[in-house]
Parts: sequence; C-alpha cells; structure tokens
Amino acid sequence: MRTISQAIGDLVDGERLRDLLNDLAAFGARKDGGVDRQALTEEDFRARRFLVDRARSLGAEAYRDSIGNLFFRVNGRENHLPPVVTGSHADSQPTGGRLDGAYGVCAGMEVLAALRESGVVPVRPIEVVIWTNEEGCRFSPGSMGAAAFVKPDRLQELLSSEDRHGHSVEEELGKAEEQFRDVSLVDLARPCYAFVEAHIEQGPLLEETGNTIGLVRGIQATRWFDIEFSGVASHAGTTPRSRRSDAFRSAVELASDLYSMFDAGDDRLRLTIGRVEVEPGSVNVIPERVRYSLDVRHPEESVLNGIEEGLRELAGNHGTPVTVESTMRMKTAVFDDLVLDAARESVEELGLSWMDIDSGAFHDSLQLSSHCPTGMIFVPSVGGLSHTPLEETDHDDLVAGTRVLAGTILRLAGTA
Amino acid sequence: MRTISQAIGDLVDGERLRDLLNDLAAFGARKDGGVDRQALTEEDFRARRFLVDRARSLGAEAYRDSIGNLFFRVNGRENHLPPVVTGSHADSQPTGGRLDGAYGVCAGMEVLAALRESGVVPVRPIEVVIWTNEEGCRFSPGSMGAAAFVKPDRLQELLSSEDRHGHSVEEELGKAEEQFRDVSLVDLARPCYAFVEAHIEQGPLLEETGNTIGLVRGIQATRWFDIEFSGVASHAGTTPRSRRSDAFRSAVELASDLYSMFDAGDDRLRLTIGRVEVEPGSVNVIPERVRYSLDVRHPEESVLNGIEEGLRELAGNHGTPVTVESTMRMKTAVFDDLVLDAARESVEELGLSWMDIDSGAFHDSLQLSSHCPTGMIFVPSVGGLSHTPLEETDHDDLVAGTRVLAGTILRLAGTA
Repeated sequence: MRTISQAIGDLVDGERLRDLLNDLAAFGARKDGGVDRQALTEEDFRARRFLVDRARSLGAEAYRDSIGNLFFRVNGRENHLPPVVTGSHADSQPTGGRLDGAYGVCAGMEVLAALRESGVVPVRPIEVVIWTNEEGCRFSPGSMGAAAFVKPDRLQELLSSEDRHGHSVEEELGKAEEQFRDVSLVDLARPCYAFVEAHIEQGPLLEETGNTIGLVRGIQATRWFDIEFSGVASHAGTTPRSRRSDAFRSAVELASDLYSMFDAGDDRLRLTIGRVEVEPGSVNVIPERVRYSLDVRHPEESVLNGIEEGLRELAGNHGTPVTVESTMRMKTAVFDDLVLDAARESVEELGLSWMDIDSGAFHDSLQLSSHCPTGMIFVPSVGGLSHTPLEETDHDDLVAGTRVLAGTILRLAGTA
Repeated sequence: MRTISQAIGDLVDGERLRDLLNDLAAFGARKDGGVDRQALTEEDFRARRFLVDRARSLGAEAYRDSIGNLFFRVNGRENHLPPVVTGSHADSQPTGGRLDGAYGVCAGMEVLAALRESGVVPVRPIEVVIWTNEEGCRFSPGSMGAAAFVKPDRLQELLSSEDRHGHSVEEELGKAEEQFRDVSLVDLARPCYAFVEAHIEQGPLLEETGNTIGLVRGIQATRWFDIEFSGVASHAGTTPRSRRSDAFRSAVELASDLYSMFDAGDDRLRLTIGRVEVEPGSVNVIPERVRYSLDVRHPEESVLNGIEEGLRELAGNHGTPVTVESTMRMKTAVFDDLVLDAARESVEELGLSWMDIDSGAFHDSLQLSSHCPTGMIFVPSVGGLSHTPLEETDHDDLVAGTRVLAGTILRLAGTA
C-alpha cells in the first residue's frame, strides 16, 4: 500500500521542475551559463514577480513582509495552526550558478504543484518562502531576510544596509513597492511549525560517497578574523636584513603557523586565508602593511576556541606588530529531530542512498533554527563546485531531492 | 699650500646650495614637505626651465638631446676634449623627498658657481646633466634618459613608452618643445671623459658607521621575477583539506623557502616580495590565483645564480602549478678607478671620514658606466630613509659632499 507521501512523491514531475529551474535561471542569465541575480536588483524583482504569478497559478496565496521575504501559502484543514515552511533564496552571487538557492525555491514550488494534482489537503498549512538577500554579496550581512524574520528588532539596522553605490535595502524595496502592491503584507516572526530547506551540497562528500541525499545535522561554527601586520616601508635594494621590518614576511610566517594548525586538526576543520592586501605593493619597496582575512570552521566550538587561542598566541611571536580583530562569530547550528526524522523516513521510504552530513556553508536555515524546528536536505554537487557558473547537479538527483522534500513536508503537515 | 681643488672647495657656499635645493623643491612641493615631480609633467618642465635659466646666469651654455636630457656646459681650455660630466635627475617619486636626484643636480650647479667665482679655467670642459625620467614611476623603464644617451638605438622604443593614461614620452616632450626652442639640440652618445654623480645613500650604512662620505664601488646586480600560483577557487566552508588546491597556501610555502634562502645568505643579499595579488580575494573563497614579485640583489652574479636556481627548483615542489617569469636582469656595475681615485684624493684632502660602499639602488650611473669611466659619491641618509617625504640629510653633509664633488671634478678636468 502506498502512503500519501509516496503518492505525492510520484506526482513530482521532473520535466516541470526542469522547466521551472530554466525559467528562473533566465532572470539574470550570464552568457557562460551561470546566473547574476544579486539581491533587490531589477533582475531579482522580475524573478520574484514571475514566482508570485506561478505560485498563484498553483492555487497559493502570496504574502510579503517588511524585509521583502515572499511567502506562498496553501491552506490546510486547520489554518489556525502554524504552517510548515519550505524554501530558500532567489538571489545569487555575481558569478553564481543556476541552483544555489534556486533549487530550494523550485523544489518547494514543485511540491505545491504535486500536492495540488493529488487533491490531498494536509492538516497544517504549507508555505514556500523566498528569503531576501541570502548571499550577502550586494548588501551585508547575508541571510538578511531570514535574520529579520527571526529577530524583528534587527529590522531597521538591516534595512539601512547600503551597497557600494550607497543604495540602501530600504530604498531598493521602496522602488519595488508599486509592483508588489497586490501582495499582502504579513508580520515578521510569525510562528512556524517547522522549516525545511532543500539545497545543493556545495561540497564533494555526497558525490565522493555515492549518496543521493544528505540529511543535514547542522551547520558548523564559523569565525572570521582580520589580521593586520605593520612594518616599515623602505628600499628593497638598500635596506640590509638586520634593518628590515617586512610586514609581508611576518604575514607569511603567521600563515605558515596557521596552515600547520590546520594540518594538525581533524578532517572537519576548515581554514582559509582568502583576502590579502599588501601595501604599498611596489616591486622594490619592502611592504609596510599587510592585512588578510582568516576564515575557520568546525562543528565543535571547542576546536575553534583552540585555534583562536593559538592564533592570538602566535600573533604575538612575530617580528612586527600584529593585530587580530574578530569580525564574525557564528555558533554551531544543530538541526531538529522533528524535521530530520521526517526526512529520514521519507528517504528510506523512497529507497534512496543517504548519509548524515554537516553543512560547511551558511544557509537561511541557520537563522531559522533559532525560531522553529529546522532541517535541511542536500543533493550532490558535481565536483563539489558552487558559487561558479560551473555549479551542477544531475537532474535525477534534483528530482529525488524534491521527492524527499515532498515526503518530509507531508509528514510534518500531517495527513491523518 | 692650498691646491686648486681645495680653493674651489672653499668657495662652495652652503647657503647658496641650500637656497637652490629649496628653490628646486618648490616645483611639485607636497604639503607634507616632500616632492611630487614626476617625469615630463608640467612641474618637471617648470623645474627644468628654472635650471636652464640658473645655469645661464652662471655662465654655462644649455643643450638638450632627443630624449630631453639637459646639459649645462662651461668651457675649458681645450674644448675639443670630451667633457667631465656630473649631475643626476630632477624627477621624483609621487611620494618623493627633496634630495633624491635633486641633490646631485644642485651639487653640480654649486660646483659651477664656485668655479666661476674662483676664476679658474680647467683643461677639459665641464657639464652638469639632468637625466630624463630616472625614477620610472610614470614611464617605464627608469633611467630612461641615461639609457637612450648610452644606447641611441633604444631611442624609438623609449620615446614610445606610455604612462597609464596613454600619454607617450614623445608626446610629452613635444608639448614642451616650444618652451625649450632656445636650448640647442646635441647628439646622444657624445663621448665623455668621465661621469661622476653625487647622491644621497638611501640606506643606513654611512649613518651607522659615522662616515660622511661613501665612495661607491659599484651597483649590485638585481633580478626581478613574477611568480604565479594556480589553484582552484572553492567554498571555504565546504571544501575539505584533501580537496583543496589553495594558491595562497602554495605562495606562502614558497615565500617561506625564499626567506630561508635569504637568511642563509651573506649580509649583502637583499630579497623582497613587494607586490602581492590574490584572486578572487573573498573571505570565504579559497584563492585560485596568486601572483607576487620577487626582487633579489647582490654584488656578485654567482650568488644570484644560486638564488635563481633554488627558486626554480623549489617552485616545482609545491602543491599547485607555479610559473616563474624573469622580468628584469640588471648586471653588477663596477665603477672606475679613474673617478674613484680622484674622489678619494679629494675626500682625504678635505679630511672627511669616508668608506667604500656598494649601491643597493639603481642610478643613472649604472647606464653611464658602460659609456665612460663612472663613479658616485654618497652622503648619509638620516634613518636610511628615501622615496618618502621624510628623506633627509644633515646640511653639513650635503655641503661636504659638494666639496668632494668639486675636488673630484677639478682633478678629472685638470688644472695644470
């Protein structure tokens, strides 16, 4: 006997999902096959309009909140109950791919389509959400829409964030106000029964292990630092070794020590020096100032405490003055069994290969996990690549992930 | 009994020298006390006009050649003989000081003034030269005027060099043509009996050893390289250690090895990584490309051969592909005893403290040394600083250097 969630999983239509992904990727399409659809640009608003219209054609009602998050709601049998929410973000990196964020949105829309075809009405209402500005590359910080939803007291601060041309989030939302008059406003921080987000892995583990589905246990903790080295600019040809105060040499020495700590850590540790500035940056002048970023991540806070202690101790050991500034601290997010159990039952019912996995990247789910029971479902990334036009997932895996999402949502929403 | 060169040394007037340095520093004066008088700018041409007028007031004739070098000539008793030439450059770095180049020009002018007062007419003619574009910060390469003078077959290549706004040397010289019509053209590569250049040390050795004068034996050899590391850009949070191809990590490893080679070398070795570019330069993306410059110098070519071999061997040892491009090779210049003996006699006659020294920086003299017997006279740099508005030399040292220059020129030009 087939369960209701199996029946709805069967109604998930791979061609319809493919078409929707293609339609969405047309907004901000890059010539190289990637997508440039940064938050609150004209392309983003055109994509949002398209999604509102599509959601209505599936019988959903569209809502928006004061940071521009969109919600597409289908009623259940008991509409006073908090909804089961799924979705992701529709904005991309400037050199983004077709799937990051877009997959979770399209998979949610496909669940609505399959549900409608099935004629099933679940107990709880179901909503597909599009969170504003997850990427954070135009407006800082990322996951802005989810952050405002979860912590409305941050709204004014987030609305006043400006891009590098001085345009604020509030200003850009105001420009689109006219186009979205027909979409009713709802409150931030509405109660949710659960949030579940489908996403591409953006890493290599599912592909390497041959699994179709990753059930995400949580998101590792992340700390960002800015490290600055001060030296004295002087002539490369005339300054003897004993008189040099070379900021780049100090930076290299500390970086070597940091990479050694990285190598001594377990397989879950991540350590990256990604942004590096050297001044004055002239071939024949000894560098007087170097600044670089350090990004370290691990699922356990205690490991990051050890790295940070080591960093601060080592920074004092070098020839030139070094300052270490902590610029971001994101604690480990642990996802909820309510959601993960529902997802595990769904993936086992479908007979798909799966594994437990930790997310290396941030997601809107990180914010939501402090608001309601939250979980994520990963599908493989070809070559582990993301944030590049080369980002790709086998279509069969995208369909499988959508079936798991459908089963998870139906289990959470209830059909009894 | 006082010698003629002592007599002329006595006529060197510290106040007149100070006034001339101040007058020249007014062209392109920076608010911080430094000078920004880049080659062939309006400021540079105004300074040249001022110097032409001053030279004529001292009884010299002014000439120019096809790369814009200026020559101020006073006749001797035998004007068919090649002249003794002194001088330096009048252009500066954008963040330059008042003395680099300017001192050699002003000291030469002061020798002409003292000589005129003395009434002495030497055997050979004497010329003060202002070489075009020594700094090389607006138009590449540096020492351009001296290079064209010495190797006229490079003239067209050098005239076509463009600044970053696309203006060529030829175009800028053309603009000033009208103003310098009254200055006759002379040939490049005219025979010279000797070239002697007074200059600030731009390093700390004279100050450290308490010597007033450095007799420069030569200019160390220099090699420049561009080293490029290729990695794969991927997500800082999701990419495990075993899957990383981190271009900055490779760059740090090679830099560590290079600094170890530096430490193992003798005190005359110089090694600087001054310009560093990291792409894409994002806090949470593993660097895919790093390029940095390497500047190595030593008086002995064999030492640089060893460093270069080590570099090329080490570059092959790292995790990501590395390319090493040689971008500049400047051989050791050895100065001539004809000039250095004359300078040594002069400094001993004056009873000044002195030492033999090697130049760590390039100078126009490097070019001239392949054309005629060449030498340089250094005076101390306070704190060893140069290429900064903080560049400074005690005025007494500037006067002492000018007296040594006067004695050297008189010895070379002959008074018998």
